[in-house]
Parts: sequence; structure tokens; C-alpha cells
Amino acid sequence: MQPHEQHKPYQADGSDEPYALTLAGAAEAVRTRRISPVELVDSVLKRIEQVEPRLGAFVTVTADHAREAARKAEAEISGGAPRGPLHGVPAGLKDLIDVAGMPTTASSRVRARHRAETDSTVAARLASAGAVFVGKTHTHEFAYGLTTPQTANAWARERVAGGSSGGSAAAVAAGAATFTLGTDTGGSIRVPAALNGVVGLKPTYGLVPRYGVTSLAWSLDHVGPLTRTVEDAALVLAALVGHDPRDPASVAAPPVDYRPGAETDLTGLRVGVPGNYYFDRVDPEVEASVRRAIGRLEELGARLVEVEIPMARYVQPTQWGLMVPEASAYHERTLRAVPGLYGADVRVLLEAGELMTAGDYLRAQRARTLMQQAWREMLKTVDVIAAPTVPLTAVESGRPTVTWGDGSVESVSDAYVRLSAPADITGVPSLTLPVGRDAAGMPIGMQLMGRPFGEATVLRAGHAYERTVPALGLAPAA
Amino acid sequence: MQPHEQHKPYQADGSDEPYALTLAGAAEAVRTRRISPVELVDSVLKRIEQVEPRLGAFVTVTADHAREAARKAEAEISGGAPRGPLHGVPAGLKDLIDVAGMPTTASSRVRARHRAETDSTVAARLASAGAVFVGKTHTHEFAYGLTTPQTANAWARERVAGGSSGGSAAAVAAGAATFTLGTDTGGSIRVPAALNGVVGLKPTYGLVPRYGVTSLAWSLDHVGPLTRTVEDAALVLAALVGHDPRDPASVAAPPVDYRPGAETDLTGLRVGVPGNYYFDRVDPEVEASVRRAIGRLEELGARLVEVEIPMARYVQPTQWGLMVPEASAYHERTLRAVPGLYGADVRVLLEAGELMTAGDYLRAQRARTLMQQAWREMLKTVDVIAAPTVPLTAVESGRPTVTWGDGSVESVSDAYVRLSAPADITGVPSLTLPVGRDAAGMPIGMQLMGRPFGEATVLRAGHAYERTVPALGLAPAA
Repeated sequence: MQPHEQHKPYQADGSDEPYALTLAGAAEAVRTRRISPVELVDSVLKRIEQVEPRLGAFVTVTADHAREAARKAEAEISGGAPRGPLHGVPAGLKDLIDVAGMPTTASSRVRARHRAETDSTVAARLASAGAVFVGKTHTHEFAYGLTTPQTANAWARERVAGGSSGGSAAAVAAGAATFTLGTDTGGSIRVPAALNGVVGLKPTYGLVPRYGVTSLAWSLDHVGPLTRTVEDAALVLAALVGHDPRDPASVAAPPVDYRPGAETDLTGLRVGVPGNYYFDRVDPEVEASVRRAIGRLEELGARLVEVEIPMARYVQPTQWGLMVPEASAYHERTLRAVPGLYGADVRVLLEAGELMTAGDYLRAQRARTLMQQAWREMLKTVDVIAAPTVPLTAVESGRPTVTWGDGSVESVSDAYVRLSAPADITGVPSLTLPVGRDAAGMPIGMQLMGRPFGEATVLRAGHAYERTVPALGLAPAA
Repeated sequence: MQPHEQHKPYQADGSDEPYALTLAGAAEAVRTRRISPVELVDSVLKRIEQVEPRLGAFVTVTADHAREAARKAEAEISGGAPRGPLHGVPAGLKDLIDVAGMPTTASSRVRARHRAETDSTVAARLASAGAVFVGKTHTHEFAYGLTTPQTANAWARERVAGGSSGGSAAAVAAGAATFTLGTDTGGSIRVPAALNGVVGLKPTYGLVPRYGVTSLAWSLDHVGPLTRTVEDAALVLAALVGHDPRDPASVAAPPVDYRPGAETDLTGLRVGVPGNYYFDRVDPEVEASVRRAIGRLEELGARLVEVEIPMARYVQPTQWGLMVPEASAYHERTLRAVPGLYGADVRVLLEAGELMTAGDYLRAQRARTLMQQAWREMLKTVDVIAAPTVPLTAVESGRPTVTWGDGSVESVSDAYVRLSAPADITGVPSLTLPVGRDAAGMPIGMQLMGRPFGEATVLRAGHAYERTVPALGLAPAA
């Protein structure tokens, strides 16, 4: 018996509409012909029509393209040529990801006339696995921000979706896509996933090729899935990995079976619990939920080990010291040609980056090297590290700052990036999964970080957790 | 029968002094007890005394240390515990390479009070292989130059030794060490090796760990051997390779047998001959010698294939764009603390580097990435690329410029670095070996470049060449 047959399909308040199925559930239904790709895609397209006016998750909905792809998938499956678990499954792509013949807007006026000539590696691999693209999702302009202003949180229309993969997270949370892809440079998969109550996986740096994906900061950029379950994230990851020389950072890692089994016994797993940094200046409700979830891992057999996060005070200057000049270098020509087409927030960051010296950048690069070494040492003592993904849940749109219990004031953006940046700087994999909601009903996320190329371990731990707690359910998006 | 038994020991004008032995010859003589490590080391120390007043190759001669190590090696060998081909062999280390308890001066007043606390990885590996350190050799100050002013060319006292590993090259050429180590950031192993008529190998980036070696520009720095034959370079390389996490760029490459066999048939080998760049603005005598050597490879069975060097006009800006800011970042604190202790030429370069922007650096970094990809494509069509190592032989000390046949004027430093920089930028292995002398008697070098981690192939080609032509002989150093 397959694990996903035991796993209860994810449903919205008892909804049995196909759009509410998990990817694993949808795959099983398609494989056993209980549902056809056409029905599944039509259900998701209908759901998009229903929720999109309130959600604003999509730059473009590719309904015609999706219906045709669904018919093709259906014919292949009827013809006895199934392509695996993604076959006929509706997917959204963050609008930084090229699909040949479609514009890649990066949610920016700078890209108004853009049209991609070739598929990105990830789009080509998903298409080849049979996934059906229902649309391109909103990003904070060029991925350079933590809010995604076009998109509302799937749980509360007056709250931020988070960013920069805000559209991808809100769409999955609301049933407007069975899964999506996002990108993560400082937290841009995990922050919106946590704020919208879905699963997000930032893989190890270099594991998923970025060819054809608009860069924010190439030494920090990652592509990865947003899904409604950990198991689903594993299924998407399996389709994305593999060396591609067109991304110079792409590595040829040995093949791994990412899909977690049915076993929920975590005996032998050492879970690192940070004694510093990750629980500093964290909302008490967030901390309580995450510590409860860590307790659940212990009940499942894991051994908790306190770890000290090395070089914690270098995280913010290193993240900014790498990201800001790389982003400015990437945008150098367009910033000079059409500065007025950028939003004010992004433009000021790009202009600031041009003033940085090579010494500034190299100091950050050297700090990263030392952090990577120190994290490698730390990760010899534990198998995963469990921590909050973000220190506070989704704030009201437009709220600029948060005031912490110690009286300190922090910008909301700085707060959202603070706990996710270390995994980008060090390149280690990080999985966020929902572990509860706060008093306002806003989802809370826990991240599980692992060793480089240790995706299978974090997915196994996350899956064991999700199998033994009630699911959060689909967001109302109403 | 071992190949080195067939290979005639390298001798200076018929000299049969132990200092004139190749490493392979010395190893065989030690192994078969025809010579003891004490005799060998004493012979080299005596040769140092004889030539050093004229050569200026050494910062420090560690005669007492060497004699004690030689006695220890002799006892081990007599006791039936030989350590392999380096056991008891006299070696010199460029004075950027830490040996615990010894100063590492980098030939700079800045390091006057320095003392290394731990061995560099390469020094530890050589010591563990039984090599005997006879001294630390001069470098252009902090490796930041192409001349090594303290050291004279081993073939003509009024000419430059080249740099920055000038002491290492002159010592090997004159019999003042059986082999030495150097470092190569823009050509600093290969330039002095070519100018002094010895073999120099810059390995693939990441193959030889640099822990404990003073950095010039960490994304370009390489450590490698200088020897009197290609076979000797292979023997030293074998002792140096292997992953060390203390160098963040160190890679875990699969083990390879580097030592070339006796076979000189090169049938099946595709040798790329550049149609652009490498023969532009090259002294006619140098060009003639290198083309004659390439013809020899063809006679040995290799197939010559014309190749076009990609992105050739980016070589110089990329080399400088990476090297200058990294060097300044490395020296940031000492340059602020003791600027007056640097030589004027190095100080002005370090100060200039502080003015570069992050954008300047990142442009160079991106150009390197594109060059690496383009070279990888080019190297799919050939197995090695043969070219001059430097476009002109050793010039008179103090000569600032060279005027080419097309009327263009180039600084001597720019000329020396021009043909060696591409292998540093792209990280591919490059072996230089002597292929003749010009009318003034100055040695001419040819470099063989290969695919990343293709050292065995370039060594095989170079060894086949050297086995079938007369040896250049020891430099007179008189």
C-alpha cells in the first residue's frame, strides 16, 4: 500500500471539490481514473475565478493553455502512458519563471513587453512530468521585497500575503493551484508559505537549476515548491532536481528518494533547538506553537538537542551585503535605461547597491564562507534544526514596523527575513510547514533546516509531524 | 620495470652530483640505497651555498632543520619504513606557505615578526611524505607582481626570475632544491618556471588545498609544484591532492594516478592549437619553439585541432577585476595599520583596489562564469590546448615595457600575465615545460592546458614530449 493511500486527502471544511485535493491525493485519483485531468483542472480554474477577485494571486491565468494541456494529459493517461504523480496536476509558477512564449513580468512595468523564448529548466521539467500550468503568480517586484502588494493573505483580505512568492503561497492556500513554484533569496518561499499556512521548501543551494528564472541575487537564489502537505513538496522536488550546466551553480547530486514513507517513528533523529537567535524577539503565540510542534517531534521519538547558532550577529549584514550589490549588478542596464518603471521601494534599493564598494561585498562573502563552515560543524551534532519560520504572523497591509516585548522596534520586512535568511546564506535546505494559528486566526509556520542535500531527512520529519496532527484546512479566501 | 628507471637522470653538463638528480631519479637512488637522504640533502645544501650569493632565491635556508630531517629519513629507510618517492628529497617552499614554528615572510616587511603556528596543508602533506625542507623561497611581495626583485634568473644574473614564485623557479633550475612549491593567481607558478626553464604545474582550482597559504586573491589562488621534469611534477602533485575542509574551495575529487607511464604514443590525443589570442603579440623565437614542440606532439601521434579562444578580450579586465579587490580585502587591516611597510608597487595596487565598486567586481565575476562555460564547451572538442606560456623570455631587470612588431607597447608585467591568466580565471589545469632557448640562451616555455581535473592527461602529453627531446640541463647560476 502506498503511503499516500493512507493519507487523508486535504479538504476545505469537508469540501470534496477536486481543487481541495492534495497533490498526492489528486495524483492517486488521476492514476486510478477516479478523476480526469480535465475535471481537476476545470475545478481549479473555477476556484480561481471564485477567489481571485479577492486574492490577487495571479498575474496571468492561462485557462486556454491549461484546458488544452489537461485534454492532452487525459488522452495520455487513457492511452496507458501515465507520466507519474504530477501528470494532469494544476500548477502555478511565480512570474519570474520563464515559460516559452509567455511573458515573464516579474510583476514589474520594466517587463511589460517581455516574452520568454525558451522554457526555464524547472518549467520544462514540470511540463515533461505532465503538470498543467494554470497561471503565473505575483511576486514582490523582481522578488525584491517581503510583502507582494498585489496579493492578499488567503486567510484575511486586509493582511499581507508575505513575499516575495506571495501569489504562489496564497494560490496554494486557497485551492487556486494544487502546487506552485516560488523562489527564495532571503526567505521568499518560506515567509509567504508560513503566513498563508502552507508548506514551502527551499532546497539546498545548487540542487534545483535556476536557468530561465529571473535572478534577484545569484549567490543566494533558490527555486522550490509550495504545496499543501510535506509529502506534496517531496513529489514536486523529485521532478525539479538534476544537474543543468546552464545554471553555473547547479550541482550533480546523487539521486535520492525524497518521498517520505508512512512511518512516523522519529527514534534516532536528533532535532536541534536553538538556544539563541531563533527564539529572540518572536511573538509569544508563534513561540508557543513552534515549541508545541517541537514537543510533538519529541513524542514521535526525536531527541531534542540545544544548539547555539554561530555568528548570529552577522546574519543581517551578510544577507544584505551579498544581496544588494548582486541585485544592482543584475539590474544595472535597465536601471540606467528605464529607472522610472521600477517601483519606488525597489528602485531605491537598486540605486543604493550601486554605491557599495567591492570591499563591502567581499566582507559579506567572507562572512558567508565562515558561516557555512560554522553551520557545517553545528549540523554534525544534529540531523535537523527546528525553529520558527517568521517571528510574527501576517500583519495588516501597510503596517511598517513591529514593536517587540523588549521595547525594540523593527521593520516588518526585517522581521520577516530575519529567521529565514540563514538558510539562504549557508545554502542548507529549509522546509516550512504550518503548526497552528494565532488568536487572530493567522497561520504559524515552523521551519526544519537540514544538512546540505539532506532534503529527505527534513521531509521525513515534517511528514511525520503532519501525519499526526489535524490539518489546517484550505484558506477561505473570502 | 618502472618508467623512471628508463628515464635518464637529469644532469647539468654531465654533472653526477646528487643535487642534479631529478626527483624521480633521486627517489630511485634513495629507494635502492645508492644514495642516502643525508648525502642528497648535503649535496643540495652545498649547492645552495655555492649559487645563492648570485641567485637570491631563498628568504631562509633551513640547513639545521634539513639535516635533522634527512637523518630521520635515513633512519626510517634503513629501518625498512620508506614513505614513497618524496622520502628524503630536498624541497623549497615559496615563503607564503606556513610551516609551524617558522616565519612566513611573504618577502614583505609587513611580516617581519610573523611566525606560523600550524603547518599549511601542503607543508604537512609533504612532510608526511618524507620531503625535507631546505628553505623558504622568495616571492614578489605578497605574490603581487611578476618579477621577484630579490631573485635573479638562473640562466643570466642580469635578467628577471619572473614571479611571483621567482625563488622557487630559480632554485629548481639551479639545483638548489630538487623541487619546490609555488602559488599561481595570474601565472605565478608558470611565468617563473618558463623564464627559468623548469616545469611548473598550476592544478585545477580546488584540487590542492590552500589552508595555511597566504592569499593573494582567493577565487584565483592555486598551489602547485615546480620541478625539473613533468614526471617529477606528477610525483609531487600526488602528495598534495585531497580534500581539506579548512580551505572552503577545496573539492573532494576522485583519486587519480597522475604518474605518466613510459608510453610516448599520443595517438588519439586531440591537441587544440589556438587560432587567436595565444599567438598574438608573441616573440617570433618563442612562437617558433612552441610551434616546433606542438609539431613534436603531432609526430608522437596527437591530432592537431585549431581552436578559437572564447571571450579573449575579457581576459585582462576579468583577471584584474577579480584579483585587485580580493587582494585589497585580504590586506584591508594591515594596509590601514602599517601602510609604510609595503613596497610602493604593491601598496598602490592595494590602495587602488579599495576604490573599486561592488559592481566592478561583480561584472568580473559574471564574466568569469561565462568564460568558464565557454571554455568547458571548447574543451569538449580537444583534450589539451598547447600554447606559449609567456610571450617573451626573461627580460633585463628593470625593463618596464616591451614593444611588439605591430608597434604596440605593453608593460612587461602585462605581457607576462597575459597568456597565463586564462587558466587562473577558468580554473583549468595548466602545465608549463621547457621547449628550447632563444638566441640569448633564455629558456622558452610551452603550456598544456586541460579539462578541469584533467591533470593526468596534460602530464601524459608533457611527459611524452620530454622523453623524446634532449633535456635543457641545469642552469649554470654562475
